[in-house]
Amino acid sequence: MSLPTPRPVSYISQSADFAAGKDTPSAFLDRCLANVETFEPTVGAFVHMEIAAARAAAEASTARWKSGKPLSRIDGMPVGIKDLIETADMPTQCGSPVFEGYRSGRDSASVMALRKAGAIILGKTVTTEFAAKIARGTRNPWDPARTPGGSSSGSAAAVGAGMVPAAIGTQVIASLLRPASYCGVYGFKPTFGAINRGGSHDGLSQSAHGPLAATLEEAWIVAREISDRAGGDPGYPGLIGPANLPPAVRPGRIAVIETAGWAVAEDAAKAAFELAVERLAAAGTEIVRQRDHANVALLEVALQRAGAVSYALVEYESIWPLADYRDRDPSKLSDFMRERLVTAEKMSQIEYRKLLAERLSARAVHRMLLDDCDALITLAAPGVAPVGIESTGDPVFNIPASYLGGPALSLPLMTLGGLPLGLQVIGFPDLDAELFSVAGWIEQVLAA
Amino acid sequence: MSLPTPRPVSYISQSADFAAGKDTPSAFLDRCLANVETFEPTVGAFVHMEIAAARAAAEASTARWKSGKPLSRIDGMPVGIKDLIETADMPTQCGSPVFEGYRSGRDSASVMALRKAGAIILGKTVTTEFAAKIARGTRNPWDPARTPGGSSSGSAAAVGAGMVPAAIGTQVIASLLRPASYCGVYGFKPTFGAINRGGSHDGLSQSAHGPLAATLEEAWIVAREISDRAGGDPGYPGLIGPANLPPAVRPGRIAVIETAGWAVAEDAAKAAFELAVERLAAAGTEIVRQRDHANVALLEVALQRAGAVSYALVEYESIWPLADYRDRDPSKLSDFMRERLVTAEKMSQIEYRKLLAERLSARAVHRMLLDDCDALITLAAPGVAPVGIESTGDPVFNIPASYLGGPALSLPLMTLGGLPLGLQVIGFPDLDAELFSVAGWIEQVLAA
Repeated sequence: MSLPTPRPVSYISQSADFAAGKDTPSAFLDRCLANVETFEPTVGAFVHMEIAAARAAAEASTARWKSGKPLSRIDGMPVGIKDLIETADMPTQCGSPVFEGYRSGRDSASVMALRKAGAIILGKTVTTEFAAKIARGTRNPWDPARTPGGSSSGSAAAVGAGMVPAAIGTQVIASLLRPASYCGVYGFKPTFGAINRGGSHDGLSQSAHGPLAATLEEAWIVAREISDRAGGDPGYPGLIGPANLPPAVRPGRIAVIETAGWAVAEDAAKAAFELAVERLAAAGTEIVRQRDHANVALLEVALQRAGAVSYALVEYESIWPLADYRDRDPSKLSDFMRERLVTAEKMSQIEYRKLLAERLSARAVHRMLLDDCDALITLAAPGVAPVGIESTGDPVFNIPASYLGGPALSLPLMTLGGLPLGLQVIGFPDLDAELFSVAGWIEQVLAA
Repeated sequence: MSLPTPRPVSYISQSADFAAGKDTPSAFLDRCLANVETFEPTVGAFVHMEIAAARAAAEASTARWKSGKPLSRIDGMPVGIKDLIETADMPTQCGSPVFEGYRSGRDSASVMALRKAGAIILGKTVTTEFAAKIARGTRNPWDPARTPGGSSSGSAAAVGAGMVPAAIGTQVIASLLRPASYCGVYGFKPTFGAINRGGSHDGLSQSAHGPLAATLEEAWIVAREISDRAGGDPGYPGLIGPANLPPAVRPGRIAVIETAGWAVAEDAAKAAFELAVERLAAAGTEIVRQRDHANVALLEVALQRAGAVSYALVEYESIWPLADYRDRDPSKLSDFMRERLVTAEKMSQIEYRKLLAERLSARAVHRMLLDDCDALITLAAPGVAPVGIESTGDPVFNIPASYLGGPALSLPLMTLGGLPLGLQVIGFPDLDAELFSVAGWIEQVLAA
């Protein structure tokens, strides 16, 4: 299982060459497929691929670029789709035997939008069972003895290995930013509701769709192109911001938050993070923490039960459809899922309401920082991807952003022992573009 | 096409007899099936029935009542399910050739909950094409030359004709309260989000699930039993209120609203409504209108664009999945739907956001009445069901409650020329139980 060093591949940075005829989407796809050939037999990022259809779509895109009429900046971009999200021409199996061979016959909202923008759906990427805990065998392209993280395991591994420049994932607890950190790619969890989840099997109240991508620019533009064409969830404003990557802007003040993750983070990870923080301070942003900022301290308190509350919310909200699947054939759910259902079915609507209220109050505390801080930063994971592929790793650092409902990014700007570690930047709801401006500046400083 | 006078049948009022062994769910089902035999060949309320399975379920329920262990107050109640909502043992066809013969293999959240409560899913009831405009041939049991209304056409007609005591429908514009008014049944549109829409094909931002029912008590209890077991939409508190019908309470003040409907309402309907209002005033509630209450006048202004905004929101939110279906096979969508898509696809996300903001401001105006009025009342339709089954009638009176997001009821307390006409009562979000208390008092006064 010896693999070359993975290298994510950017599509958008080739735009000028596509326009000039120096490169083509077909040639780009071939390079991706070469990476598939190298990595996929070991990594197992995909559950299903449609290579012939992808080649045909790449040829059509090549013709559009040649005639000067690409449909968008991602026309011809090969993408992977988490296998929780419906695609008309491929099965959607949700990482579960319940959905074995299931074909909905339609594209989800995000896939419909990607196709309209000219993107090429290369295949379906591995998800844990119903985007929860039980892993499905994907390996980390940086070290196949390690987990790629979950639940968007295949999406992150495929982007990390350069098989696709971007892939769509979902996050309700940690499922975009944890695998992004472990696989050395950009992970973007947009504001709740910013990308239409129609046709996906993740209706939970913290669940958001977002890209895993080779570059910050790719993460933004893929999300924008989807939201432009399919909107956000019904009743939500959709992703707000410019068509192109928001320009890097030095933030006046950044709050470092420790959260429940700090107690379990590895010393080396904390040291790498503190070094990054020092460089950001040296580059001219003010750093505040709970010890010197009352509202940051208050937020740390408000986040203490983020994990307990988030899991309880997810459990209650999962009663349907999981209890229906279990009652039809219990053997098709994992022991873990069946046990979780037992707990969930004991909850009352009133307990659920109390949890919603608690989450709402934490969100109110977060909003109190709006005037005072441009973003929050913390680790994206307690350390690099752990050895073993049964567990998808510790989600602790990713829960706060899911719980608060705002946008968050994992930036692949740190390494430990040659393995990637993400820096997490958390913004405020509907200010996704402003988060990218901060992230762009952080990237400039730390990559310098 | 001569039919006997339709008579809705109450199940819950038989509870004591079931408990005492004087009546059984099996015998009740037989009486429903006798009404099916009488009415269904003419009315066409159902697209699919499972009579043998219903009889078996009724026998099991009969045994539970006999042993003193019914699962709930609706154990053994035969119900119809709008054919937009998935059922494991029946097709779900959404009133569209796109879904011809489609079987999801699972129960929606509401159907799962109903079965857990012991209710019997007798069949799927006719919906217009994707719950929008194009009717599918159902006739009004009061006069088969007339429409039953839409889009929950079959659900209302089945309850009106006594084929089932309750049926589940959905409303985004007028789809519960209009057919309730035309078919002489109780229609309840709960607060947005109060009943879990999982597994239903109506994800729009004004869409709500609710019962059409033979009695006010049935409407409340069916909704409660579903919400108890399946909750509300993820992130929403679910239906709030007691297990049993909230007691009738005389409201201190009721606001009469005219809305855009008044200009098109028939004179006889307005006269019947005004007579009802006089009786309510005589019974001791204060009636206010726009001419004598500034905030009621403000609400009337805020509702002037309720129709235009609601339709535009629905159109934009329908781009997915309808554009996906159209692009696969345009012949499977009606001309109406294809034309609506053309309009919708011209809308930008920014236009959509402006519409959301406008709706939000109307909702804020509505909330200004919270301290001052217990409920709003108006007609549930401009008149009785019109002749013809191509059109499902004018939705104008039902748009405001959909737009405001709060709960609303149509009460079958008026008639014109022997045909039913609903009195509409509109409440405030999450105060569904309080709405039922007002409605219970109105019913006592007007039925006296």
